[in-house]
Amino acid sequence: MERKERLNLSMLFDFYEMTMANGYFRQGMQDRITYFDVFFRRVPDEGGFAIAAGLEQLVEYIQNLHFDEDDIAYLRSKDLFQEDFLDYLRHFRFTGDIWAVPEGTPVFPGEPLVTVRAPASQAQLIETYALLAVNHQSLIATKANRVVRAAAGRTVLEFGSRRAQGTDGAIAGARAAYIGGVHGTACAISDQLYGVPAAGTMAHSWVQMFDSQYEAFRTYCEIYPTNAVLLVDTYNTLKSGVPDAIRAFDEVLRPKGITKCGIRLDSGDIAYLTKEARKMLDAAGWESCTISVSNSLDEELIRDLLLQGARIDAFGVGERLITARSEPVFGGVYKLAAVEEPDGTIVPKIKISENVAKITTPHYKKLYRFYGNDTGKAIADYLTVHDEVVDDSKPLVIFDPDATWKKKEVYDFTARELQIPVFRGGELVYSLPALPEIRRYCLEQVETLWDEVKRFDNPHRYYVDLSQKLWNVKHGLLEKNG
Amino acid sequence: MERKERLNLSMLFDFYEMTMANGYFRQGMQDRITYFDVFFRRVPDEGGFAIAAGLEQLVEYIQNLHFDEDDIAYLRSKDLFQEDFLDYLRHFRFTGDIWAVPEGTPVFPGEPLVTVRAPASQAQLIETYALLAVNHQSLIATKANRVVRAAAGRTVLEFGSRRAQGTDGAIAGARAAYIGGVHGTACAISDQLYGVPAAGTMAHSWVQMFDSQYEAFRTYCEIYPTNAVLLVDTYNTLKSGVPDAIRAFDEVLRPKGITKCGIRLDSGDIAYLTKEARKMLDAAGWESCTISVSNSLDEELIRDLLLQGARIDAFGVGERLITARSEPVFGGVYKLAAVEEPDGTIVPKIKISENVAKITTPHYKKLYRFYGNDTGKAIADYLTVHDEVVDDSKPLVIFDPDATWKKKEVYDFTARELQIPVFRGGELVYSLPALPEIRRYCLEQVETLWDEVKRFDNPHRYYVDLSQKLWNVKHGLLEKNG
Repeated sequence: MERKERLNLSMLFDFYEMTMANGYFRQGMQDRITYFDVFFRRVPDEGGFAIAAGLEQLVEYIQNLHFDEDDIAYLRSKDLFQEDFLDYLRHFRFTGDIWAVPEGTPVFPGEPLVTVRAPASQAQLIETYALLAVNHQSLIATKANRVVRAAAGRTVLEFGSRRAQGTDGAIAGARAAYIGGVHGTACAISDQLYGVPAAGTMAHSWVQMFDSQYEAFRTYCEIYPTNAVLLVDTYNTLKSGVPDAIRAFDEVLRPKGITKCGIRLDSGDIAYLTKEARKMLDAAGWESCTISVSNSLDEELIRDLLLQGARIDAFGVGERLITARSEPVFGGVYKLAAVEEPDGTIVPKIKISENVAKITTPHYKKLYRFYGNDTGKAIADYLTVHDEVVDDSKPLVIFDPDATWKKKEVYDFTARELQIPVFRGGELVYSLPALPEIRRYCLEQVETLWDEVKRFDNPHRYYVDLSQKLWNVKHGLLEKNG
Repeated sequence: MERKERLNLSMLFDFYEMTMANGYFRQGMQDRITYFDVFFRRVPDEGGFAIAAGLEQLVEYIQNLHFDEDDIAYLRSKDLFQEDFLDYLRHFRFTGDIWAVPEGTPVFPGEPLVTVRAPASQAQLIETYALLAVNHQSLIATKANRVVRAAAGRTVLEFGSRRAQGTDGAIAGARAAYIGGVHGTACAISDQLYGVPAAGTMAHSWVQMFDSQYEAFRTYCEIYPTNAVLLVDTYNTLKSGVPDAIRAFDEVLRPKGITKCGIRLDSGDIAYLTKEARKMLDAAGWESCTISVSNSLDEELIRDLLLQGARIDAFGVGERLITARSEPVFGGVYKLAAVEEPDGTIVPKIKISENVAKITTPHYKKLYRFYGNDTGKAIADYLTVHDEVVDDSKPLVIFDPDATWKKKEVYDFTARELQIPVFRGGELVYSLPALPEIRRYCLEQVETLWDEVKRFDNPHRYYVDLSQKLWNVKHGLLEKNG
């Protein structure tokens, strides 16, 4: 998997990150150790959970983080930064620690997907890119997982490059969709760069380039006898499209003993047309011919089509997946959780808001997931102060952090720390998993969620509780600053 | 404006473009001259017009289009392509012609934004990227223009990088937003690469890093006396935020004789808070202090805030602009319009659909815009066959292509061809305008539209008519193939 030369993304920051970094530098605060959490406040589409992704992009960015002379020249031209700071940038590298939830993990609002412990200037400068990477990849992985669940075991292919929001939206979007469970993409470069399997056969223009549809189909079958998926809706699907396809299969594939083939529909009433096409194919002895469809699909339409008994083997899902059209923003934020005193004391920090949902959970924390030993299902997530250890050999009483009288005893469970160390002192200490491994892990972990959490409409709210100690820290700060 | 090394995007194609290209090659059809149009069918958000953009990206892609040995190796690994075709790709370059509407032009459904005349394999392979570039850039430019019109002359800054759909969504998205009329961006790299002016001052974390808000503000004013925009909502906007800002302005800026400064609000009831903040600032003698706001804004909210008399000088618009959240897909398509016979005869092609709106307008065409000589306003657009010339010295009767009895005589008008030649025989013949020039042209051209077309809700439908000759070609093909 060769990685081609890419744009240095170190300059992809909101300008205020740099004015603040310079400000810390001017005050001699640039090396003060800070803790920031990346978390989100609600799941897109009112879903029950999201899929965390984007860590690989963040790792590559951190490893490459540096400022070239042309970057420095650009910054100098803004007339805001002094030479000593520009010189500091010349030697700027990331030297901090990062913990993160592995890509593909189902995650819930309020959980730290990424935690950064780093000198203030560094932690500040990486904010924009860290959010961009996690927000975009998690957005698409989460949406893709919805689509894949709606397809109920059928093949789903990502077809949206032409409507993606920019090149990276297409290329890295297909990667995120694969993590979320799609089986492949139309986008060749995503296959080449990331190993997302790419496939495709013909557009309407192929059919239009020949004197007849039949000739277009026959020619295609002759050139690609083992990869013949014919687009049957250029003229009239049932009157000529399916009959011409059957004739091409009969005349080219059957003599070669090839039974693998397919048709694709990109328009019309998919439920009706696929049922009729299935009958025609079966009657002609092409039970092995698959039916793919691809017209402005999303999880709602797929669910509807299947409810109506549409005969579909594969879905090509385009613009509504690659842009997460139903809700195209993943609202991850990056908030200060703590600062370290020179003596190493960690001072928790809180961001207060009139809007209660926007109040942050302070401190350097740990995130646990509890799995029931009998079912293997995820029971609850549990945030603690960093120095707490959960003993899962004994029952534990947890409580709702907002409605504290709602208590629950968990027992016979296994506690797993969700965040893993990624960087220590600027060094990568995490071995990035291969993409198919991330995808497998994602699908396995989604299986650990109860169906009630996976429901599309009004899913059950999964518990994300705070330890008593962490709750006390948070409420102490609220009392003090509120 | 230095352009850094970028990923070669030649492999950014839907896989079927390559199976079709190989198919044409195998049939000896690869050099058959084809005409393809890029057009869209409806304006996002039910708007009255869109802003065309993305041509610069398309030009850079075409100029760089080539396949490296690793690309060839990847394609070979798919076991679908023969060596003679792979060798053909090794020498593959774009040798065709491209015409396009200049970036920043207001455009309407059914109009060819880009027309490609090229050998079949080439025209096919560039489909995916051409659509991606035009769709993404036009999507954001169109949305930005809505936001800018809602802001009614006030400053609009693009703040969305952290929620963009991938790096290019952020970087090139800010470029498109600038074309559509925003005044600047938070994204530093968009400034560095494209010259979109970047600015920014502080986040909540700056305020939290100091022992008091006042100290954070004072320090910032000392470091950046000429760039002091203070974020006043970390704790309580009116009780401490604005008072602390006034104190910092009084103590640091006033002694230096500096009057230029600002505050920013990122939460709370913006209408109420800005009115109260304005009173407090004015009462303290800081009439020169600007008020910026930035909380999940879009054109609807901006219009509402201004209707309520909010006192706002600048809007920071984030996720809802950079993802075009209200409608995140621009539905440009790429359709075969004609093929050339070996003798040079141009044979028009049509794509028929049960859905009348999806029927294409065939043939190699010209696109005119008619401006009234008295008002300077755009009256109608007019599509003709390529060899027609509009004589604007005489009145002309045009008609609605769907309701042909609806006729209109245009007189005292100037006809302008909207498409300009971009490539001829693979050579760039167009001088790409500088970005500020594109932005100025866009704003000027939007001014040529009647207010009725610019209305957000139920805008007047602008006429895009066909010449009699083109209408006859289209209806002849419909009769033959329908």
